[in-house]
Amino acid sequence: MTDEARKSGAFKIDEANVDFPFGTLAVLGLGQLGGSFALAARAAGLVNRVVGFGRGEDSLRRARELGLADETTTSAERAVAQADTVLVAVPLRSVPHVVEQIHAHLRPGALVLDVGSVKGNAVRDIEAGLPASASFVACHPLAGTERFGPEAATSALFRGRRCIVCPTPRTRPTDLDRATQLWNAIGADVVVMSAELHDQTMAAVSHLPHVAAYALVAALSDLPDDVATAAIGLPTTSFRDTSRVAASSPVMWRDIFLENQTALLPLLDGLLSNVSLLRSAVASGDGAAIEAILQAGRACRSKLLPE
Amino acid sequence: MTDEARKSGAFKIDEANVDFPFGTLAVLGLGQLGGSFALAARAAGLVNRVVGFGRGEDSLRRARELGLADETTTSAERAVAQADTVLVAVPLRSVPHVVEQIHAHLRPGALVLDVGSVKGNAVRDIEAGLPASASFVACHPLAGTERFGPEAATSALFRGRRCIVCPTPRTRPTDLDRATQLWNAIGADVVVMSAELHDQTMAAVSHLPHVAAYALVAALSDLPDDVATAAIGLPTTSFRDTSRVAASSPVMWRDIFLENQTALLPLLDGLLSNVSLLRSAVASGDGAAIEAILQAGRACRSKLLPE
Repeated sequence: MTDEARKSGAFKIDEANVDFPFGTLAVLGLGQLGGSFALAARAAGLVNRVVGFGRGEDSLRRARELGLADETTTSAERAVAQADTVLVAVPLRSVPHVVEQIHAHLRPGALVLDVGSVKGNAVRDIEAGLPASASFVACHPLAGTERFGPEAATSALFRGRRCIVCPTPRTRPTDLDRATQLWNAIGADVVVMSAELHDQTMAAVSHLPHVAAYALVAALSDLPDDVATAAIGLPTTSFRDTSRVAASSPVMWRDIFLENQTALLPLLDGLLSNVSLLRSAVASGDGAAIEAILQAGRACRSKLLPE
Repeated sequence: MTDEARKSGAFKIDEANVDFPFGTLAVLGLGQLGGSFALAARAAGLVNRVVGFGRGEDSLRRARELGLADETTTSAERAVAQADTVLVAVPLRSVPHVVEQIHAHLRPGALVLDVGSVKGNAVRDIEAGLPASASFVACHPLAGTERFGPEAATSALFRGRRCIVCPTPRTRPTDLDRATQLWNAIGADVVVMSAELHDQTMAAVSHLPHVAAYALVAALSDLPDDVATAAIGLPTTSFRDTSRVAASSPVMWRDIFLENQTALLPLLDGLLSNVSLLRSAVASGDGAAIEAILQAGRACRSKLLPE
């Protein structure tokens, strides 16, 4: 390193790496997950600088005001050009496009992580779109609430949560280790499984619950005025809890349902069939049929969520 | 009152009324609601004695051990014979039978309340089954959790909650006042509405959410072993919250669905239709159709549950 280069600041990042093991972080997408990751990584002393990429100037300005990033840009290339660590946290359907944009601009050795809720297609798209030398690790932190956008970011989001990591034949063990260290340092435990098992499992315990919650609230759209007015005055915990995740981002969940079509469809058939059976049993006054479905469901819940 | 009568203890209850405005309480059904009412009424100094009626010796023994009642009996007649206040808290389908049993044994002037989750049929049944002189007030406290049985009773259950009261043409204003005082004294605010509006509103914000939750968990009954095992290791907040009420009593909810058939059926059709639309849209990859349902649902939720 020349004195001139040192003085110009061009190597500041490399020097910083001694103290900040994950150097400069580029966060592509400053929503709840991306923004929280930036806050958490900085709070844990892992990164010395955060560059945020987003498409909307408004949301980037709010992200800067909230301290999610030191610098923001609407150019993904520019965001990754100086980054030692890259978090891909854009909506699922934007991932291929963003990967294409950053392909030629990643620094050699940069660690690339994603946070997508569906892994099969996304992992294939990302691996196909990145240079073979890239250090990519597919991740899905089980964090996030029904809130979204930069305002929903918090440095504690990943604390005590699980992060599923899905290695592929191309994943290098050293990259898996680095990713694991990073998640651990911001409070998450890493669970390793195949992308296929991940997608089937999430279809069951995350995607289908979202379908049920959205279908429930959609079914209440046309209540008579007097009933709607009475309902507003009588919030019940059953309605509040069952529908909570239907406050989530419709665009994000549209993409998740579409991306996980293969694993989700058979479960959607099961949901449809059970709603239909309950509807018929209520219509015909068949108490035994109703009770059988309720008992089976209750037993399944206590199996999947043991005390 | 003769000295002899006083000495024999036969008028103990009337004397006690000076201090305990609701005298002796008979609780018919010592589940979560009945048991909690007994605890709350005693903790608030409203009643001096609690007699509990139930059908199972086992559950009555547990209720006594938990201090829910001073005395228990498997005879509903016996339970009400000395009662100044009667709470009917048996399962909905048992109400007509219990009312028939107590009809001839109620003390003149005794205040009779129920706690049923469906009011239309039940109120008609109870009024038809009680003597015309009876002081009956139809109540539905919006309390209770997915837990059930005597063990789930707690004196704080009604604190800060609403209790819907549904007067009929036969309800006397003085009885409505007494019932309101009682609910207020154990921490609940009273909301008055017709039984019909109650049933339509509860179908929307309580009964349909239970259908959605039960149908969701029933749809997950046949997961492949590897997926079920992975799911058990990865409890998600979306699954936990969306399915919480599916841990409730299948028998109780079977009865509620059947009793509220009229109000519930059109909503069940709406739920079925929305699940079906989502299923078709996911199958055909129709993102716009998915998003439209999700947006409508999200908007409906924020209307019914304003911040």
